[in-house]
Amino acid sequence: MADLWQSAMDHAVAVARKAGQVVGKALHDDRKVMTKSSSVDLVTQTDQKVEQLIIRSVKEKFPTHRFIGEESVAAGESCVLTDEPTWIIDPIDGTTNFVHTFPFVAISIGFSVNKEVEFGVVYSCLEDKMFTARRGRGAFCNGAPLQVSEQTDIKQSMVATEFGSSRAPETVEKIFCSLRNILCIPVQGVRGAGTAAINMCLVASGCVEVYYEIGTHVWDVAAGSLIVTEAGGVLMDVEGGDVDLMSRKIVAANSKTIAERIIEEIAAFSPPRDDVLPQHQ
Amino acid sequence: MADLWQSAMDHAVAVARKAGQVVGKALHDDRKVMTKSSSVDLVTQTDQKVEQLIIRSVKEKFPTHRFIGEESVAAGESCVLTDEPTWIIDPIDGTTNFVHTFPFVAISIGFSVNKEVEFGVVYSCLEDKMFTARRGRGAFCNGAPLQVSEQTDIKQSMVATEFGSSRAPETVEKIFCSLRNILCIPVQGVRGAGTAAINMCLVASGCVEVYYEIGTHVWDVAAGSLIVTEAGGVLMDVEGGDVDLMSRKIVAANSKTIAERIIEEIAAFSPPRDDVLPQHQ
Repeated sequence: MADLWQSAMDHAVAVARKAGQVVGKALHDDRKVMTKSSSVDLVTQTDQKVEQLIIRSVKEKFPTHRFIGEESVAAGESCVLTDEPTWIIDPIDGTTNFVHTFPFVAISIGFSVNKEVEFGVVYSCLEDKMFTARRGRGAFCNGAPLQVSEQTDIKQSMVATEFGSSRAPETVEKIFCSLRNILCIPVQGVRGAGTAAINMCLVASGCVEVYYEIGTHVWDVAAGSLIVTEAGGVLMDVEGGDVDLMSRKIVAANSKTIAERIIEEIAAFSPPRDDVLPQHQ
Repeated sequence: MADLWQSAMDHAVAVARKAGQVVGKALHDDRKVMTKSSSVDLVTQTDQKVEQLIIRSVKEKFPTHRFIGEESVAAGESCVLTDEPTWIIDPIDGTTNFVHTFPFVAISIGFSVNKEVEFGVVYSCLEDKMFTARRGRGAFCNGAPLQVSEQTDIKQSMVATEFGSSRAPETVEKIFCSLRNILCIPVQGVRGAGTAAINMCLVASGCVEVYYEIGTHVWDVAAGSLIVTEAGGVLMDVEGGDVDLMSRKIVAANSKTIAERIIEEIAAFSPPRDDVLPQHQ
């Protein structure tokens, strides 16, 4: 089977690059915005067009494979991970960035078999950085090997997170509580690229020691999760213990030490899981 | 005098590019860190080396000009703006990013005469983006004209700001209060590049509608201030009224409408001015 997954991964890289061209072109002439769960949860026609482009292209080559795509799920399709080979797709991670031409926009393609991610591809298309990882074979950016930061002192660390798209007071309260606790450890800085996939690639690249967020979806993190672990990093749940990509909660860090230190400061909450609702919102 | 300033600006662009090469090289082999005002206010030997490189190079060509440089002021030199031609230099804006190889690092060079900024150069060296503006002649990125966003609805806007390097509880309190007010207007997103100069270039480029911060220094914002106004944007104080680049408080927006709406939500405070202390901290 090894060769089959390699050919699937090669296909993922090629289609991500093609999708990136469509996104780059649309940046200049097609950013008509619609909203989803709230006035700040955005989607564009480009999101939908790019997801269809990826799915069509994959179906042609791998007709028996399954899909979990952000826009397909939004349109009512199932979001349950089976043992079957499954492509987990976010056509534009960082839609708000895309709408504003903010320079972090990614195409994220994860591929799982037996519920385990076999390869991950994140194409940061405005930076032209192709992040890739295959299970057991390392993580790369444009072909150069990635390695997480060696920093083990939280006070020398940089943290990535996001405010998310909920503006519900109780959610905002928790998000600000965590953020303030962490800033005042103190850490050296807090950043957020505006996309989970790129935040995870920043961990894998050693630019930040840790990324955490509550509210992510499986399509945001499937590819990035393997890129982090193959670069030497770890994944955990925000309350400690193993990560569950469907749980919408993630800590991705350079080490267990840093992950556990951050977890101490997180005010956790549990949004509805990706795999129990007919739609994700 | 017009020609003289043009030749000074050409020199600024050339020396910024040269400085960017030094920064890019140092990113791989020379990021030894020291601290300034607090454990999260960082400086490296590269900051000091790059400032000296810029000042030496300018002095050779313009021996009568004056300088306000971040590291020179930290070393005890005066930070008072006179009517004389003055180069206002931040050798590395985004030192924390530089230390972590986070991809936003800028060389910022402003040039003022009669206390007015005549030209501004911000070189985002890891992105290889050269932002330039000359008074009355527009703003550019790598030669292409810049134009602020036309968005006048704050709820459709993206905001840039920073947490800053103070961890004093009363400062953090105000920063979080403003941030929460603004997030819950709601705006579409809040981002921070980790450098004031690049945040201002993001306003000029139309990627964010507004950037605000309390705690900036004149060397962080002198160049960017002209880039914003020449791209069609406005500058204000965080409490309304005219901006004062020495006051360490700034709102840079695409329009007066957006600036004034953001100002309503800012919990203001006043750090010590740049031009009254022997050192800036």
